[in-house]
Amino acid sequence: MDAPKPGDIAAPEGDTLVSIPKLQAFGERLLYAVGVPEAHAQLTIETLVEADLRGIESHGMAHIVDFYIRRFQAGQITPKPNIRVLSDAPSAGVIDADRALGFVGAHRAMDMAMEKARQTGVAFVAVRNSTHCGAGQHYALKAARAGMVGISVTTGGNIVIPPGGKKRTYGSNVISNCAPTGRGFEFTLDGATSAVAGGKFEIARRRGKPAKAGWGLDAEGNPTLDPNDYFSGGGILPLGSSTDTGAYKGFGYSIFGDVLSGVLSGMGSSLTMPRDGSASHTMAAINIESFIPYDEFIEHMNVMVDGLKNAERLPGVDEITVPGEPEMRLENARKEAGVVPLHPSILEGFQAAAAELNVDYDL
Amino acid sequence: MDAPKPGDIAAPEGDTLVSIPKLQAFGERLLYAVGVPEAHAQLTIETLVEADLRGIESHGMAHIVDFYIRRFQAGQITPKPNIRVLSDAPSAGVIDADRALGFVGAHRAMDMAMEKARQTGVAFVAVRNSTHCGAGQHYALKAARAGMVGISVTTGGNIVIPPGGKKRTYGSNVISNCAPTGRGFEFTLDGATSAVAGGKFEIARRRGKPAKAGWGLDAEGNPTLDPNDYFSGGGILPLGSSTDTGAYKGFGYSIFGDVLSGVLSGMGSSLTMPRDGSASHTMAAINIESFIPYDEFIEHMNVMVDGLKNAERLPGVDEITVPGEPEMRLENARKEAGVVPLHPSILEGFQAAAAELNVDYDL
Repeated sequence: MDAPKPGDIAAPEGDTLVSIPKLQAFGERLLYAVGVPEAHAQLTIETLVEADLRGIESHGMAHIVDFYIRRFQAGQITPKPNIRVLSDAPSAGVIDADRALGFVGAHRAMDMAMEKARQTGVAFVAVRNSTHCGAGQHYALKAARAGMVGISVTTGGNIVIPPGGKKRTYGSNVISNCAPTGRGFEFTLDGATSAVAGGKFEIARRRGKPAKAGWGLDAEGNPTLDPNDYFSGGGILPLGSSTDTGAYKGFGYSIFGDVLSGVLSGMGSSLTMPRDGSASHTMAAINIESFIPYDEFIEHMNVMVDGLKNAERLPGVDEITVPGEPEMRLENARKEAGVVPLHPSILEGFQAAAAELNVDYDL
Repeated sequence: MDAPKPGDIAAPEGDTLVSIPKLQAFGERLLYAVGVPEAHAQLTIETLVEADLRGIESHGMAHIVDFYIRRFQAGQITPKPNIRVLSDAPSAGVIDADRALGFVGAHRAMDMAMEKARQTGVAFVAVRNSTHCGAGQHYALKAARAGMVGISVTTGGNIVIPPGGKKRTYGSNVISNCAPTGRGFEFTLDGATSAVAGGKFEIARRRGKPAKAGWGLDAEGNPTLDPNDYFSGGGILPLGSSTDTGAYKGFGYSIFGDVLSGVLSGMGSSLTMPRDGSASHTMAAINIESFIPYDEFIEHMNVMVDGLKNAERLPGVDEITVPGEPEMRLENARKEAGVVPLHPSILEGFQAAAAELNVDYDL
């Protein structure tokens, strides 16, 4: 267990510490340079920087060029989208995001879900024709920080191999769930329904480390530890990795995500989604007070958290952490220090983009 | 891949083929003998037999004595419960099941969720003070067969070891999700959020087979392949099994289940739930027509199912099956044949119970 201690910004060796406000301003300048409106640029960079603050390197500023600027330049993201509500029931809705930056439609959907949930108790809002929206937890956290339970589902990227399959076929559909606690952090489930997210192969490749057994298969369907195989036709195994240890459940969770997001939004399954950043989302909010008093909910969450943390540990394990706790520690420590660590190759990408787009680089 | 072929009732060698109507009637007689009202007994046995029809041996009639009759005799299940609705919002509700047989409160909650979802689009109904309700998919399937997306979450049984932990600590909280398709079966995710359900150790022990690597740890926290260790203080690992391959996600899904069910029902976390069959549930229904036309939903599901089934396969794999497809094949074949296969030790248990309760045994 290598959970960060409180106060530890956990900078990997060789990383550069980058000022948060400078990073935010630089990221916005890059987006302005390709024609992104101010409000969308701010929302996008805030969401990406939050991922870096919380140690989610796979969904942070490292993607600003490839996932957003390049797709913007390629016409795959709409600069001034016409976002429309297609259906609107007391606790359900569908939005067409008109291929806006994913952050925009996803925030709009969660805001709508939260408003409906305040009225009725629970609400789901699905988004079609959207694009990559960063880390799913961002939206579920928004609900949790407003005193609700949040669920965020996002579909896209047909990179996962079904059990018995040889090739990448379906989406690494991400399910996130956040709930408030009284212990200084929000419980946070967030992850691809595959053994790992594609971003983990990127990080392994960037940092010169092998993949782990159970992550994926190469283009011929053989188990592999070489992260490069992922980028040359390989794919990712479902959570559970093998059928002996629950791969059908990971597969089932991925379809669950696809049902709630791709199918329910009317966009269609991740299987048929083009690999151009296309995504669908579903945002759900559960109004705690419609079930039980909020204080009672928090009290039960605290008992859960304390019980898990106080569980008997294996030798060599310093601490049991609850999902969301290490992320909150990093967020607090990095905000306090005013910096996030970034790998030199990410900064090189920033410099090249700044030169290309004629934007000041001052990190 | 050993998915049953259509028409194959897939009876394990040595099992006895038992008539379905006789099994239903015998099960009801056992429950009547301990004082269960007729409607509750019928619902219970139908739900258990459905599990056996669908090949879910871990949640079928094998449990009738230990999970239900014994707990009934011990006063842990209320014969004539006073089930009350504690909160009632347009898309949310909480029920106190008064320790009824779990099947009763769970059905009531799903019925209420479906009715609310028809009005508002989506609804969640949580149940506190309930008991073991069999296979979670039964309730989600009920919604799917009524043309909705169903979600069933149930909490109970502190048998799972958190990542880094040594001892069984928290619940194998079960999340199930079902959705209709146009391909003759409902998509069905159903499983403990652990690598396997406790019932898998029971089956391995009953059938003299080893556990698999990644299933669990013994009472000292060591990896084990001996299914008996589970019954002498060992525990189950979260889905993902190791932290390298996503055990934190399985852990997160379990907490997700606990938040939605234990906490939101007001009963409290699975950590604190007594090991006397206590359970909480949450049943959710999503009214497809509140999002998109039903036919469009089915069309997207069919594209998904066909795409997954037609994916390129590994050598030696005859077929890729979608979760819920093998279960539906078994259900169809066994209903057609009018029998379910049961292990001899299960029938011995029935005979002993029949003798003890002075009930006719005619299987």
